[in-house]
Amino acid sequence: MSDGKRLAVLGAGAVGSSVVDLAVEYGHSVVAFADSSSAVTAADGIDADSALDRKSSDGVVGDDDPDAALSADYDVLVEATPTTLGDAEPGFSHLETALERDRHVVLANKGPVAERYADVRELERESAGEVRFEATVGGAIPIISTVEDLSPSHVTAARGVLNGTANFILSRMAAEGIDYEHVLAEAQDLGVAEADPTFDVEGTDAALKCVILANVLSEGEREFTLSDADVEGITNVPGSALELAAEDGRTIRLVGEATRDGIRVGPRLVPQNAALAVTGTRNIVQLETTHAGQLNLSGRGAGGPETASAVLGDVGRLD
Amino acid sequence: MSDGKRLAVLGAGAVGSSVVDLAVEYGHSVVAFADSSSAVTAADGIDADSALDRKSSDGVVGDDDPDAALSADYDVLVEATPTTLGDAEPGFSHLETALERDRHVVLANKGPVAERYADVRELERESAGEVRFEATVGGAIPIISTVEDLSPSHVTAARGVLNGTANFILSRMAAEGIDYEHVLAEAQDLGVAEADPTFDVEGTDAALKCVILANVLSEGEREFTLSDADVEGITNVPGSALELAAEDGRTIRLVGEATRDGIRVGPRLVPQNAALAVTGTRNIVQLETTHAGQLNLSGRGAGGPETASAVLGDVGRLD
Repeated sequence: MSDGKRLAVLGAGAVGSSVVDLAVEYGHSVVAFADSSSAVTAADGIDADSALDRKSSDGVVGDDDPDAALSADYDVLVEATPTTLGDAEPGFSHLETALERDRHVVLANKGPVAERYADVRELERESAGEVRFEATVGGAIPIISTVEDLSPSHVTAARGVLNGTANFILSRMAAEGIDYEHVLAEAQDLGVAEADPTFDVEGTDAALKCVILANVLSEGEREFTLSDADVEGITNVPGSALELAAEDGRTIRLVGEATRDGIRVGPRLVPQNAALAVTGTRNIVQLETTHAGQLNLSGRGAGGPETASAVLGDVGRLD
Repeated sequence: MSDGKRLAVLGAGAVGSSVVDLAVEYGHSVVAFADSSSAVTAADGIDADSALDRKSSDGVVGDDDPDAALSADYDVLVEATPTTLGDAEPGFSHLETALERDRHVVLANKGPVAERYADVRELERESAGEVRFEATVGGAIPIISTVEDLSPSHVTAARGVLNGTANFILSRMAAEGIDYEHVLAEAQDLGVAEADPTFDVEGTDAALKCVILANVLSEGEREFTLSDADVEGITNVPGSALELAAEDGRTIRLVGEATRDGIRVGPRLVPQNAALAVTGTRNIVQLETTHAGQLNLSGRGAGGPETASAVLGDVGRLD
């Protein structure tokens, strides 16, 4: 177990806020916290409750410029700003700045390891800092660390249900016989789906996670980006397909698969009692391994505290 | 990732032999290998195939005295001798000798951490070596490392099906309506149950694993041993109980639960589609966590390569 670390947290959404909220309980201190327009820094640890209250009420975390967080004296940069595609900016530059200063980086932001994996690993090689990213795939479920412990060469495939929004919708459609539009509206009311649910229902989010897994599995051999993924979402799954499936003891789930050869995401028929037939917003990953058969890891794939738990687990695994 | 380590492997059963067989593939070397009556040592790595062939044909691994392995120059002692209860000897002394020499110890032997957990941790504190024991609970399934990453204070309970023999028997009784004696005989023919199956069918093996989990969860506060566990096996589960359960959409599994307060193992009714209703020899552990909800981890709980995979994963996690 490593000793307590000083964290600089970028991003004040659900994940960043939860990391700030839980850091001290995990034995660490938050020396800097920033959202897109502001920051608060304190060498001996910020007042987390104050900063979070201020974010709620005023929409800012402090009075400093956001760059103050990146220049603070921290051990670990927690990058929890929104995932962006393509050049993965500004997240990638945040990671770059930290590694150039020989600090560690723990990502909740998928962009750098989905879209610029080789660049990230190169910067890491040139740095005394380490990059970890458990929180980018499957929230609280220990997927990346399990692949790491098995060593990627011993994992032939990672397959799973990795988007809670899409899974909730499909499992509700199956359970209640309600059509897609109605279940989507219910999901939005519950906060399970965004006002703009595209990223989730079109399979993009699941695909990004599978791209990250494929990058880990094919480490050193080749690199994938979202554009390499073969992706189909759930927007064209009719209620009738689920009824037909049920008559045959099956159901439909949005399943993603990552191997050394590529990434595929799409709706798939699975037996109703299959491990992949998780319900609600739960996620599951199946790892096919060389010596250990199939490992199934399931749990909550999203949520502030859940994902913060993965971030803080990564902090604990740093030297 | 740590660099390649020099391993001294004690125990030439399924697990020890698989560790010796796979070590080089995982980037390590085996500098010593011993069974109860012999040893083979080589500073630059033994010839694994020769030693394993010799064990098969002659029942010994080499020409040296078994103590030669303990005195060899190694980085990690892999203790894979048979689990013993009470004083956990000779496994405990092997661990003690290694730690006194400031070497690391990776356990597949449950005895020391089930029966003398506080003693193990005390020796570890006084040593530069570290003790890891993923392989003692759930074979290939990453349970101990997941609890470690979450930190034990964030895990309120660990519950699961942890004995493949008992689970195979119950799931076959349920699936085929065959009685216990017949399924036991089938399991013995398949090598899934031992000639003397007591340890498995009376719940002792599952209980030892739960005692280890309870020791991890209550680290520093209290220590448990097998004698603290409330244990009931499967020998009194009649076929009629399974039929009755099935009429209600349920089945029976040998479930163990570990919390900070103790350990309980016994046959339990579970819904047929529950996560705990694993079939065949598969194991599952459910971790109830403070911030991350319920994590389910399932896979092959036993087997040479599977358990060796956990041992070698532990070696990789050492500094």
